[in-house]
Formats: sequence, structure tokens, C-alpha cells
Amino acid sequence: MTKSIFYHAGCPVCISAEHDIIELIGTDNVEIVHLGQDKSRIAEAEKAGVQSVPALVTPKGNALHINFGASLTDVRG
Amino acid sequence: MTKSIFYHAGCPVCISAEHDIIELIGTDNVEIVHLGQDKSRIAEAEKAGVQSVPALVTPKGNALHINFGASLTDVRG
Repeated sequence: MTKSIFYHAGCPVCISAEHDIIELIGTDNVEIVHLGQDKSRIAEAEKAGVQSVPALVTPKGNALHINFGASLTDVRG
Repeated sequence: MTKSIFYHAGCPVCISAEHDIIELIGTDNVEIVHLGQDKSRIAEAEKAGVQSVPALVTPKGNALHINFGASLTDVRG
């Protein structure tokens, strides 16, 4: 299985969701990307269908928006 | 690990998320509850913090709202 990618921006909702996701699918199965710190990857996230963070992009390429922390527009700042 | 519970209501968004979640965390690790068919469990879902479906309640008791299919008010009908 290819890795999932978990996009977040350091917000409290994001961190909480991150812990849950890692616990559920295992730290080895997910790459964590902090879009606030790594803005160069915002375009990649958008292309994958991510509209807000936290979001998980599955190996199949589906974007799952988990709860709501911030829109990508806010992250871009 | 105790099971997670995935609450949904049969909507297209729910079914799509269900497939992703089962693939990510494994069918043995999640109980699937169709609130549209089993309305007696809506109160239980609400108590767990579920506000809309599809949602995943983790073994730790956190409610993760995944994308947005319908509010519990709509499911109750």
C-alpha cells in the first residue's frame, strides 16, 4: 500500500486529528505535511482536492476532509 | 485496540468515505452503522459528538467528521 498524506497547518483541530489518524492507520502508513511550514506543497494539496485542513489524501487519491481547522485560503495567508 | 465506529446514512459521500476508511484501517477494526436504517442509534452517535455524517468515532472516543454528507438533523428526518 502506498502512503496516505495528512495535510495540516498546526491548528489545534489539526493536531488532534493527526494523533487520531496516526493511531488508526499507523505512523508508517502516513506522511505528515505541515502546510503552514511548507507552503510550497499547498498547490500539490489543492491539486489532490484538499479544500481545508486537516485533510487526508488516501493512496487511491481521495481527499477526506476531517473536521475543520482552516481553509487553504487561510493557510496560504 | 477497540473498534472504531463509522456512522453514515447511505448518501454517496458516505459510501465513498466508507470504502476509503475500511481500506485504511481495515474492515475488522471498524463497525459500520447506517443511521438512516437504524435510527435507534442516532442518540448514541450524538452523545459521541457526531454532528454530521459520515463520521468516525475512534476507540478513544473522538468524533472525526469526514467530508460532509448530511447533518444528524437531516438523518433524523
